[in-house]
This record gives sequence, C-alpha cells and structure tokens, in this order.
Amino acid sequence: MDSNASNARLEGVIPPLLTPLRDRDALDLEGLERLVEHTLGGGAKGLFILGTTGEGPSLSYRLRRELIRRVCAQAAGRAPVLVGITDTAFVESVELARFAADQGARAVVAAPPYYMPEGQPELREYLAHLIEQLPLPLILYNMPPLTKVPYAIDTVRWAIEQPKIIGIKDSSGDMTYFEQILLAAQARPDWSVLIGPEELLGAATLMGGGGGVSGGANIFPRLYAALYRAARTGDLERTRELQRRACLVGEKLYTIGRHPSALIKGLKCAAALMGICLDFMAEPFHRFRKPERERVRAALEEIKDLVQDV
Amino acid sequence: MDSNASNARLEGVIPPLLTPLRDRDALDLEGLERLVEHTLGGGAKGLFILGTTGEGPSLSYRLRRELIRRVCAQAAGRAPVLVGITDTAFVESVELARFAADQGARAVVAAPPYYMPEGQPELREYLAHLIEQLPLPLILYNMPPLTKVPYAIDTVRWAIEQPKIIGIKDSSGDMTYFEQILLAAQARPDWSVLIGPEELLGAATLMGGGGGVSGGANIFPRLYAALYRAARTGDLERTRELQRRACLVGEKLYTIGRHPSALIKGLKCAAALMGICLDFMAEPFHRFRKPERERVRAALEEIKDLVQDV
Amino acid sequence: MDSNASNARLEGVIPPLLTPLRDRDALDLEGLERLVEHTLGGGAKGLFILGTTGEGPSLSYRLRRELIRRVCAQAAGRAPVLVGITDTAFVESVELARFAADQGARAVVAAPPYYMPEGQPELREYLAHLIEQLPLPLILYNMPPLTKVPYAIDTVRWAIEQPKIIGIKDSSGDMTYFEQILLAAQARPDWSVLIGPEELLGAATLMGGGGGVSGGANIFPRLYAALYRAARTGDLERTRELQRRACLVGEKLYTIGRHPSALIKGLKCAAALMGICLDFMAEPFHRFRKPERERVRAALEEIKDLVQDV
Amino acid sequence: MDSNASNARLEGVIPPLLTPLRDRDALDLEGLERLVEHTLGGGAKGLFILGTTGEGPSLSYRLRRELIRRVCAQAAGRAPVLVGITDTAFVESVELARFAADQGARAVVAAPPYYMPEGQPELREYLAHLIEQLPLPLILYNMPPLTKVPYAIDTVRWAIEQPKIIGIKDSSGDMTYFEQILLAAQARPDWSVLIGPEELLGAATLMGGGGGVSGGANIFPRLYAALYRAARTGDLERTRELQRRACLVGEKLYTIGRHPSALIKGLKCAAALMGICLDFMAEPFHRFRKPERERVRAALEEIKDLVQDV
Repeated sequence: MDSNASNARLEGVIPPLLTPLRDRDALDLEGLERLVEHTLGGGAKGLFILGTTGEGPSLSYRLRRELIRRVCAQAAGRAPVLVGITDTAFVESVELARFAADQGARAVVAAPPYYMPEGQPELREYLAHLIEQLPLPLILYNMPPLTKVPYAIDTVRWAIEQPKIIGIKDSSGDMTYFEQILLAAQARPDWSVLIGPEELLGAATLMGGGGGVSGGANIFPRLYAALYRAARTGDLERTRELQRRACLVGEKLYTIGRHPSALIKGLKCAAALMGICLDFMAEPFHRFRKPERERVRAALEEIKDLVQDV
Repeated sequence: MDSNASNARLEGVIPPLLTPLRDRDALDLEGLERLVEHTLGGGAKGLFILGTTGEGPSLSYRLRRELIRRVCAQAAGRAPVLVGITDTAFVESVELARFAADQGARAVVAAPPYYMPEGQPELREYLAHLIEQLPLPLILYNMPPLTKVPYAIDTVRWAIEQPKIIGIKDSSGDMTYFEQILLAAQARPDWSVLIGPEELLGAATLMGGGGGVSGGANIFPRLYAALYRAARTGDLERTRELQRRACLVGEKLYTIGRHPSALIKGLKCAAALMGICLDFMAEPFHRFRKPERERVRAALEEIKDLVQDV
Repeated sequence: MDSNASNARLEGVIPPLLTPLRDRDALDLEGLERLVEHTLGGGAKGLFILGTTGEGPSLSYRLRRELIRRVCAQAAGRAPVLVGITDTAFVESVELARFAADQGARAVVAAPPYYMPEGQPELREYLAHLIEQLPLPLILYNMPPLTKVPYAIDTVRWAIEQPKIIGIKDSSGDMTYFEQILLAAQARPDWSVLIGPEELLGAATLMGGGGGVSGGANIFPRLYAALYRAARTGDLERTRELQRRACLVGEKLYTIGRHPSALIKGLKCAAALMGICLDFMAEPFHRFRKPERERVRAALEEIKDLVQDV
Repeated sequence: MDSNASNARLEGVIPPLLTPLRDRDALDLEGLERLVEHTLGGGAKGLFILGTTGEGPSLSYRLRRELIRRVCAQAAGRAPVLVGITDTAFVESVELARFAADQGARAVVAAPPYYMPEGQPELREYLAHLIEQLPLPLILYNMPPLTKVPYAIDTVRWAIEQPKIIGIKDSSGDMTYFEQILLAAQARPDWSVLIGPEELLGAATLMGGGGGVSGGANIFPRLYAALYRAARTGDLERTRELQRRACLVGEKLYTIGRHPSALIKGLKCAAALMGICLDFMAEPFHRFRKPERERVRAALEEIKDLVQDV
C-alpha cells in the first residue's frame, strides 16, 4: 500500500514532529534535517508538523511557513506531511493551509479554536466554513485538555459525513470516545482514526484503530512502529510486551520536572542528548536546565535496552 | 479455577449490582432475588454491591446492612460478594466492613473519602489505617469524577505492596492509568485489575486486565461475559464485534435524559421493563418518568438482536 | 434585635465551629467547652456545627449526635445553633435533623448530596422532599468545590419562595452569584445571605449581605465581628483596614503545607497553640506535624498585632 | 486628574470595546466610529481593544492592526487606548505591541499564552522576556476560564515589583484573589487594579479597586460610570442601587442562547439593535439569529428604565 498516494488512508505511526529551534524565531536547520531522516528511517508513515509536540501555537507565522516549506521538501515522495493549522483566527488558519498546499502537504490538521468557548453547533459551523476554504483534506485534532472545547462525538459523526474530512487524531486519552469513533467510522473505510497517547497505541490498534501520532516516535520510531505492527497483525503477546516497554519509556522520560509540559520537554531534551537536534524551546516553555537534563540522561540509560532490538 | 475460593484472584465480569428499591428506605425483595439469579445465571463471576450503580452512598446504613445480609445469603457458595464501604467517615466504613465479614462477604471495596480534598500522602495514610482495622481484604475503587480525589498511580503502586489490598476497580476511563496499573501489578499475580466502563472491557482485557465491573451486566450479563471470554482467549475479531455491540447498547440505553445520571437510570429502568426489579431510586435521583421510560422501551427493542445469541 | 428569637433573621458572624477531638471517635470535651465560650465571648452571633471546618462528614454519626447535644446545651439561651446535616443519604440527613430539633437547634444546614451528580431539577425535588420531613428551618450551604453540584441561581430563586428555607451560606467565592442572590432575596427580608470566605466578608456586607460564616472566627472572633460591624454601619475606611487584616491572617495562617486542607489544619493547629482545644483530626486528614506546627506558631506571632485592639 | 497623561494611573470605567465587523475580515467602519463616540461620550476613561469582548484572538493580524490604527487615531488626545496583545506566539505579541506603540497606544494588555500549559515559573520568565521587548507599559489580564493558566497571586506580587507592569485587569470573578491583589498593590500607587465582571464593579471599587473593564459599558457607559463614581465616593446606598441595576442588565441581556458566549453575543446584538454597529461575529461565533435577536429586543425594552437617568 502506498501510503503517500493521495487517496490512501493514512495509517501507521506518524510522529508529531518536534520543531528544532536554535532561537525563539529561528529553526535549527541541521537538527530538523536529522530529525526527519531519523523518524522516516525508523518506520514513520508520515510526519505531523506544527502540533502540540511541535510547539506550533508558540511559533511565529513566519517560522511556521519556513518549517512547512522545509519539511515538505525533505519528505517529498517519501511520506505524507500533515500540517497543523489550528488557530484562534479563522483567516490565519486558511492562509496557512493554502501555503501548506502549495508546498505539497498531504492534509491539514485542526483542533477547535482554543480561546473562545464555542458550543458544538458553532464548532460544526466553523468546520463547515473551514472546509469550504481549504485546498487540502482536513484531519480533526481532538485535544480537550488544551483547547477546552472537544470535538464531541456528535460533531465527529457529522464530520464523518463530510468527504473533505478524512480522519481524526484523538489525544483526549478517553478510550470510550475512541471506541465510539471507531464504531461511527465504519461507514468511511478511508477515514483514519489515530490515537494520540502512546500508552494507548496497543489497545487502540487491537480494537481497530488506524495508527498513532506518538510523540515518542520522534526519538524511538522503531519501538512505536513495531508496537503498531504487532497489534495490527494480532500478535497479542508481542503487543503487550512492546506496550509495556512504551509505558516504561513514558514513566521514565515524561515525568521529569514539575510542570505539565514534562512530556514535550522530556522528548526535546532526549533528542538533544541523542544528538538529533537542539533543545531550545519557544516561550512560554524553556528547555530543561542542568539538573533535569541529568535526569533525562539517566532515564535514557535506564531505558536503553527497552528501545533496542525491536 | 474456583473463583470463590478465598485465595483465588477475582476475575471475570462482576456486575455492580443495582439496588432494587420499593421505597426510599425499603428493598424490593423479590426484585433483588431475581436480579441476583439473573446475573449469576448469566455468567457473573461475583457481585459487587453498594457501588455507584447500586446507589450505595444514597442509602441509609440500615438498608445497606439489610442488602449485605440478603445478597451474601443468596450468593453463598456460588459467587464471591464484594461490598462497597466507601464513606466520608472512617468509623462508618469500618463498621460496615465488620458487618460484611460477618455475613460472609469475600472483600470490601473503598473509593477515597469523597468530601474532603485529601492529598495523596493523606490518602495513603488513610488506607494504612483502614486496612489495619478491616477484617476482609480491600479492593480500591478509583472513581475520580465522583470522589474528586483519585488514587494516583503512586498510591496504587504503594497499595500493590500491601498484602491486604488485593485489587482495583478503575472507573476513571483513563486507559493510560490502567496500563500503568497493569505494569505495576505484574509483581502481584493475585491482584485483580478490573475495568469499570464497559466500553473498555475488550481493550482492557486484551491488554491483560482481569475483568470488568460492567453496569450493563445487570441486565445483559451474557453479553459482557462473552466479550470478556473472547478477549481473554485472544479472539480479536469476536472481541471487536462484541465490543461494538456493547458500545451500541451504551449509546442507546445510557444517553436518555439530560442528567449525568443517565447510565444508572437507564439501567434501572431497563431492568424494570425487563421484569427484573422495580425502578424506584433513592434521592437525589428519581426514576425516569413516562417519556424517558418509553424511550428506554424503544431502545431495548432496538438492541434486542445485539444482546442475544452471545 | 434578639438574634436567638426563633423568628429573627440570622445575621452577623457565625463561626463554622471546629470539632475538637481527642481521638478519631472521641470529642475533646474541655476543648469544645472552651471553644464555644471563646467564640460566643468574642461576639459570635450563632454557632454552625458539623460544617466543612467542623469536619462533619468525617465524623461517625454517634459522635455527630454527641456534638449536637453538647453544643446545644452549652449555647442554650445565648446563641442559635445551626446544625449541618449534609449527607449523601436522605434518610440519615432527616434523622440527624430530628435529633438536632430535639436538642434545641435553631436550624439545619444542608449542602447538595455530594456523591451522585444530580441535576438541578433533581436537586430542587430533593429539597422539596427534604423540607417536608424537616422539623426545623433549612439553610442552604453552597460549596461547589467539595460537593461538585452547586445550588444554581435558579434553584436558589426557587428556595427563596419556600417558607421553610430561611437562608444560604455561600462558600463558592463567586461574588457575582452572591450579588444575584442578594437581588433575589429582596423578596424575603427574613432570609439570611451569609458569605463563607472571610476575605469577602467586608465586600459582601457592604453590598447588603447579612453576615459571615468565617472560619477564622474560631480563633479571632473579635476581628471578624468588628469587620462585620464596620461594613454594616458603612464605615468604609475601617472596613478596608479590617478586611486587609483579615486577608493577612489568611495569607499567613491558611497557606502552610501542601494540601488543599491547609485552611482547616491551620485553624485547628492555631487553636491548639492558643490553648483552646486539641488539634487531632479525623481521617482523611491528619494534624500538622512538628515543622508545620512551628510555622503556624511563627505565623501567630507575626499576626499578633493585627488581631488585637479590634 | 488627567487620565490620559502617560504617568497617571489608569482608572474608572474602560470598556472592552466590541469590534464592529461587516465580514469575517472587514471592519464596520461607521459602526466602529459610532461605538468609540458612544463610549467616550458616556464617560469611559479609556478604551481597551482586542480583548475577549472584542473577539481579539478570532481576528486576523491584518484586521487587528487596522483596528489599532483607527481607534488610536479617533481617541487621540481624548482617552488612553489599551491594546490586547495576548497571543500564544511571543513574537507575534511583540510585533503587535510595536505597532500599537507607533499608533499612540498608552499600554498593552496580555493574558498568559493560552494554548500550552505553562507553570507559574515559566509564566514569570515569559513576562520578564516580554517586558524587555515591549515599547509600552504592560497590564496583566487574568482570565483563567479562557486561558486555563491564571496569573497566580505570587506571580502578580512579582509583577508589582516590575516598573514596566502597571496594572491588572482581573476577570476571574474571584474576589478573594482581587482582595489579595489590592493588598499587594498598596506598594505601587500607580498600579491599576481593574475588575472585569460588571457584577463586581461596586464591591471591587468600595474595597479600593481602581475601576472596571465592563463589557456593558459598550452600550450603557453612563450606568457603569455612575456606579463607579458612587462607589468611589463612598455613597453606599447609590452603589447598591446602581449595582442592582447592573446585575439586572446582565440577567436579562447575557443569558440568551445556550452557549457560553451569551455575554459577547448579547452585547453585540444589543449594540446593533441600538443602532450603534453591526452584529457580525468572527468564527467560531456567529451572531444571534432571529429568535434570540427578538429576545434581546425584549430584554432591552425591559431594562430601558434601569439604564436611564444615571
């Protein structure tokens, strides 16, 4: 199956790409190149840029465009690029989508506008207006802890009826909701139902999910790709074993520091320690300082065996 | 494996028993008898009384004792009875546990005290004091939407080291947390890791969970027992198919009426329409009125085929 | 105005009485006696027992009854006693209310049942059933951070039309809601609109509120009584000055320790250090250990001048 | 006192200006001009543009700049203009601030970055970086229901020590927090402590607050200006009476429709019915349809007498 063909269902592990930075408004170009190769070489079936893990909303529009341009160019012909266009301003989302289309992106990804507390009927109307203007197919991004407003299940059912909407990435962690989507999406074989949290990749795929947007795949793409394949082929024992490993990776790596941003910081710091890219972060975050960095280094040592030979 | 033996791990489907009432402070005795036979006859591997579905916290202590006495007597020698002792007052929990032990219950079940906002260190101390006084093993009941305070994963890890604590029922709906518990409980083969939401019974069991406390098993015990068995034996196709049915049951039956109590009310009303027991509810809930009752009747008709031949 | 007369509106500062304990299920009798004298002698216009500050839900029913009996006896003829009957079980609330009536209490106080997630229509029905059975007038207790379910403003408007409901204690901290109640309660001059958080006693009284259920009045009753009087008589400068002091007391005394229980623990520890009563706490809380106790001692020294000469 | 002088403390009623639109990305120019005259003529002491009520985050950057330019030009020499620069991207906030400075704005206003869940230490660092780059003084905007992250009181205390930060607009509705700020701000006589919710304007001003950013002042500026003056001069009876009116305005006008956006929609619809400006709204909101519009018309009729003769 050629997952890059424009009519193929997106599936497999699609990392939410970190955005390597060397300053608040400057890309770490070498790091970005290495990161793209590292993930694609490790079995990633696509790249999702400008998501939460990619610090999308924290970046200037200028830098977002530069990132889109570079990743699309580098991945061209090898893997589909999905571009986050989530924004509180409709007009800015549309402009970014047009730019992404021009650069060869495969689809755009949008969470609900995340400042105003819109109701679900307004959210449906927003989506209806948005897909009218979009030059690319749309994937929904459900992330209620950050957007406050979820894509409620009825809104997802409506979306499944819109040809231009081709899937969802669910980062809610709510597997009941995920099961409800699987049930509803039976009507659209081309619809991608992707799970966010990597602790759920095994269960989600066993139950029929199409893949995962796993943050950990930035650094250990083989582990998540293997976990996905095991679950996809119904190898229960191996699924449990690889999921156990993925959970341990998270326990060690995403729990350093006091702030809710521990996951993104842990990933970016680990990527830096592994020589992939710099760990500079855009405000409002900052990279780990020395003590946390040492804890990440120790965690990487501890999990070394878990992420090999997969 | 004799799941009633006092040293066997609790597993399989254990319904959180509805409490049939004929008045605010009076049991529906015939209904209760029928309900116990209906669930045990349908494959339930135990009975959990005085939980949320059983309206435990809404019942007088006198009635709670009467319920314990009757269910223990009826189930004696056939299935283990687990008794909810969740309370805001430590002394009342202990007294109820003693009564339950005298009546032959197998274990008691406790959620965190749910009025005061205790921290996790206090919660661990609470558990330490509690198990000192308990004449029976304890199963944790994680239900943060109602108790506000969760059993945080570190508290569960501590609990896994306490011989007197023998399992957890997780109703959080958070599968990442559930996976973390599975990982930690590998150290205790006698520990029961049970899932609350029936939409997750398939996924939880596939990943290694020990069973479910499925509300729907009050009325359709065979469906949930079959789903559990399919997942337990690794029959992926049948697991997906039966989980799909279970999700549809929930979509039809637990979404009637505007209030968050829709699940309990839907179940109790359906049980009444099926001739199992009365649908009287203790304050602060009230049974469905006529229009909702008719919608439940229609839903039962719609899902009729889903719950047969399992 | 004789505020003890059964038809007078309850007003002024009414402390939510700490429950002095010498063990989990035993009152500190001498401490209780001293506490009642300390508060009444300091200007308290009534006593509210078995509230949150009194750890009501954490106490056994036996102990709750003993507390009611003793406080009613000691306060008889001097100040009205309000008894918390908040419970998840309707039958237990009613029984406690009957006992309170027999002992001479002036009114009972009830928050919404705090386990089940009832809707507002159910809550109104609950109140309607409850007042039918109550031998005493009822005061609502709005405490959404602990009960999850609030008394929504429409429910309060309904309550204002019920002769048997005579007021509300609002601990939500939401002054917009408080203003809405003041507006609605203009129709019932006998209705008491009391504010919970002591940081709001000045503003609430200036805007027309009837008094406060101020936790700090357990230890510094004169400060809160003086603040209430200043605001009641429109002395703006003195209100601001005394409110400033009350805020400083809270900043110093209620912020020790990491847990959300800091307020109750700070108060009980301070009361112990002031020689009023023991600081034993019922589960799920425990009294401050040595380091926190020393910080409370230091805080008391710091605020010494603020609470004198009022 | 010349409140337009660059060193004077901002105080009084400063409306959070609606943004009159004739399309998603086009200003209603005549409406905007009328609205500015209506508010300034009604006693507004400044104009706050691009806040929540102004739908700031929903507008394109191009339109935001046009709005800044026009309002600054129209208000020049008459009233200070405060410009919302709240953004998830640091670089965009700074660029907007520079533009605002060039156009003659008096200060900029920023809520915490509202997508990422930064901790308070990160938020302080963010502010430290931001004020280094800002060409204008900064006013904090505390709006936790929409930003998720609040300016915690310790962060506000830190801000009070930064000369470049000159005040806060608190829209949390948490008067305890507001009192704590008043206490802390005694050290900075030039600091403006402004209240958001208009139901709290009376209480906040009586306790020492410096004014209000009252949405209702878009349409009834005289009412809020009069309420502020009454409270500022200590006229308790008139404060209560005018606050009562302001609360009734809110009860009638901000409770139409099912969605949490009722306040902004009610205001914009009322402004349209009063002939001030169009009621077009940017996504994700839409203007009221006919039935809600008729209810707003009826509400305006009902409250007509409340907002006159002030």
